[in-house]
Parts: sequence; structure tokens; C-alpha cells
Amino acid sequence: MPPSLGSWHDERLRVRLEETDAMQIVYYSKFFVWMEVGRIGLLREVGLPHAERVRRGFNIPVVQAHADYKAPARFDEEVLVRTRVASIGRTSVKFESEIYRLPEMKLLCTGHTVHALTDGSGRSAPIPEDLRAVLTSS
Amino acid sequence: MPPSLGSWHDERLRVRLEETDAMQIVYYSKFFVWMEVGRIGLLREVGLPHAERVRRGFNIPVVQAHADYKAPARFDEEVLVRTRVASIGRTSVKFESEIYRLPEMKLLCTGHTVHALTDGSGRSAPIPEDLRAVLTSS
Amino acid sequence: MPPSLGSWHDERLRVRLEETDAMQIVYYSKFFVWMEVGRIGLLREVGLPHAERVRRGFNIPVVQAHADYKAPARFDEEVLVRTRVASIGRTSVKFESEIYRLPEMKLLCTGHTVHALTDGSGRSAPIPEDLRAVLTSS
Amino acid sequence: MPPSLGSWHDERLRVRLEETDAMQIVYYSKFFVWMEVGRIGLLREVGLPHAERVRRGFNIPVVQAHADYKAPARFDEEVLVRTRVASIGRTSVKFESEIYRLPEMKLLCTGHTVHALTDGSGRSAPIPEDLRAVLTSS
Repeated sequence: MPPSLGSWHDERLRVRLEETDAMQIVYYSKFFVWMEVGRIGLLREVGLPHAERVRRGFNIPVVQAHADYKAPARFDEEVLVRTRVASIGRTSVKFESEIYRLPEMKLLCTGHTVHALTDGSGRSAPIPEDLRAVLTSS
Repeated sequence: MPPSLGSWHDERLRVRLEETDAMQIVYYSKFFVWMEVGRIGLLREVGLPHAERVRRGFNIPVVQAHADYKAPARFDEEVLVRTRVASIGRTSVKFESEIYRLPEMKLLCTGHTVHALTDGSGRSAPIPEDLRAVLTSS
Repeated sequence: MPPSLGSWHDERLRVRLEETDAMQIVYYSKFFVWMEVGRIGLLREVGLPHAERVRRGFNIPVVQAHADYKAPARFDEEVLVRTRVASIGRTSVKFESEIYRLPEMKLLCTGHTVHALTDGSGRSAPIPEDLRAVLTSS
Repeated sequence: MPPSLGSWHDERLRVRLEETDAMQIVYYSKFFVWMEVGRIGLLREVGLPHAERVRRGFNIPVVQAHADYKAPARFDEEVLVRTRVASIGRTSVKFESEIYRLPEMKLLCTGHTVHALTDGSGRSAPIPEDLRAVLTSS
């Protein structure tokens, strides 16, 4: 995939008690929930809210997910989830994420997800040109 | 609703780290997840697995949920989820649940859920006689 | 418990994909997660953020939870979670919740939780007067 | 890390409704919950249940998590979670996972997690020789 980095989309979240575990830190899988909140927010910002994707009949299921954990998050803290398009291939798109604790902007986690576009019948499909355009210029 | 109590259906579960919170006990909403595991198990046992309900085009969404918490559950403990049909009305069914810590059978939680049968178009519908029969004799 | 209703505290949330289920609506236990977000927000607003409760060594575990579901919530919708103190007893407090779909303010769910104050050793304890005062006037 | 592959530990799970999402498949972060169920089961099998790790005052927080998704899992399906020690370094251990749909053993997901041992004060610490021994021979 050629590099075509978009700009960062920011979402602020507050850690819910439900997201913590008995180690008194946020459970590791929850960072992927936050990355998804960031992706959905980015897609909404570039004009592709969920309703529009449903109308056009395509979907972008996750084919790879990765996280590197740097420091824990704790209950009631505020975190910043930054998301951008890392690269776009013919049929797939890669988002990357950085998650920080606020207000000090301490880096807690970096990660990425890769998604393969599928059409209405669930088959892999090329990314439409207009979608590629908005994601590239995001 | 006339009482028509069925017999108890048992499911054993082990507490997952994801189900605990920073208070080092199981987060309160997770007991409702366990109650649902119990209901699905009871329905499977009486011959109504999910696939059969989908085939017949009906659904049983929750209209009420209630829990009374007696004692906490903790990570890695084994729990027993007991479920039975508490009563059946013309268009609704009530399940009740008791959740125990094993092996000492300490009662952790009692609760219930009420479900309204809906047909394929999502409208409330009378409970079919054969469904009523298996639930009553469960 | 004598009635001592406080005013409503509002939190706006957007439905996450993780909160939905295969019925394409929000899973029933997630409404209790939202109720907790509302409670924590109310407590923060009246000057009792989590850090302060930890410092003072008390906790307010849930002893009862109840929800009545009126209409489903769906992915990417915005919801309003309203929370208020319903009543305060000698050792317990009851919060009530109303959850609406925005922007049309369609009522999705009503519910309540009852909490028993515990001291640092986990024993039931009377609600301190200053806590009672802020909750009553919330 | 020199390779020191242990044997596979197997856990069978049934997909819960709570684990699915509005795409009618299991939500991507839930595979990491299942991987953790597998790890805890493996550690219990080799004589390191959670209670023993608490007693000895060490912890094994996740520092990296990775998943490659091959095919979706759906509500009420049975899945097999296979887990083994992939490698052990001086202060870290890597587990790998394979998740299959039963009964046909269709591969749904492969993944791994890397954990850094920490002592009672939360600092990185060398893996004790007896722990290394049981993990290597697992």
C-alpha cells in the first residue's frame, strides 16, 4: 500500500467503570472499542456516517487488529483517541490510532486496524474512487 | 399471569477478567449477560435453539430486567446460573434467575426478565400454543 | 425512604457498535452501563468525583438494578441519559434514570438502581450528613 | 526470544448474544476476551491459577495484542480457543492463539499477546526460574 496519511481525527472519552478490570486498570480489549469509536468518528467527519455506508451497501470488516500498550488507563480518567488513515490499497484500508491520557497527553497505546471493503453480498470489492478520495484527503 | 413454574435449567460459568471492574468484583451489568446465557440454554434444552426461533420468524425481546445483588462474584470463581420459566401470559413470558458461587452454593444474585413475543414484522404477537406447551412443561 | 428528588443530570452518549447485538439493537445489559455513566456524572457534578470517594474511603455498591425497556436504541444514534436521586435512606440511596433517543426525545428506557453505602472495611454504614446534604440538594 | 513452544491448551466456548454486534457477527474485540480465557485456562492447567499468582505477588500485564481475522463467528455457535506459549524471554512471555468454529474446525482467527512480568511494586522483573520451567514445559 502506498502511504497516503490523512490528518488526525480526535475523540475524547471518559473511562467507564465497566471498562476497567480487577487489576484496577482498563481491560486490554477495550482499547479496540475506543479505536472503533475513533474510526466511526473519522468516517462521520469525512461524510461517511454509518447510515450512508448502509445506503450504499458496503461494509468494512476488520481483518487485522494490533495494539502496543505503553501505560495503563484508570477509571474516570479522560482519554484522547486519535485516528487517521495510514494507507489505502485496492481493496483495503488501514487506520492507525494513538490513545493518550488527558490532560497531560501521556501516550497509553498505539495500534492499527486493517479493513477489507466488502459489497452488499459480503464479497471483497475494490474501494470506490469517491471513497478513496475522501479517505486519502481526510 | 397465572403461575406455571418450570424446572430449573443450570449453566456453569467461570468469571472472566473482562467481567470484573476496578472494585475487584464482577460489574453489575454482567449478571444480566449471565441471565441471558441461562435463558438461551433453557430454550435450547426445550428444543428452541436460536436457529429454530430464527426459522420460525419470532423473537422475544426483553421488556423488563431486574436484579437483587446479595454478594459479589470475583475473578476466576465458578458460578452456577439457574433459570426457569416463572410465568407465561398471552403475549409474554417471565424467566427468573438465581446465581450462586460454587462450590459452596452461596447465593449472589436473584433476578428476572420479562419478554414480549414479536412476530417477523416486530409486532407483539400471541405466544404459539406449541411454544407455550414446551415452556410450561420446561 | 422519604421522597427527596433531586434535579436531573444529563449525559449525552453515542451508541457504539460494541453495544449492539445480532438483533441489530443495543444489548439490554448496556442500558445499565449507561445508567452508571449517568450516576458517575451526577456525583461528579455535586462534588463527589471518584477520586474524592476513594479518598474518604467509602463506596456505594449496587444492591438492586431495574430497567423497563420501551423502544430499542441502534448503532450510531445519540442518546440522552437523565439521572437523579430518587430517595435517600439511612444507609442507602436510590437513583432513577430515563434514557431517550435524540434529537426527538423518544423514551427508550426507564430504570433505577439502589446503592448501600459501605465504609473502608466493606460494611454497611450510615450516609454521612454532608453526603446526604449534597445528594438531597442535587 | 528463543523458540520454546509448549503444547496447545483447549477451551470450548459458546458465542453469547452480548458478544455479537449489529453486523450480526462477533465484535472484533471479543476475540481478545476469548484469548484471555485461553491464557487463564493454560496457566491454571500448569499450576498457576490466579490465586497462586496473587499469592506470589506478580502480574503479567499485556504489552502487545494482535489478531488476524479469517472468518466471522455468529451467535450461539461453539468455538474452540487453542492457546500455547510461543516463546519466553528474560522478562516477557508470548502466547499464541488459534480460534476455530466447531464442529467443523474452521479457522476464524489467529493471534498473539505479549506479557511483561511485573513484581508486587509494578516494576518489570525477570521471570522466576520455576515459572519459566512450567511455561516452557506446558
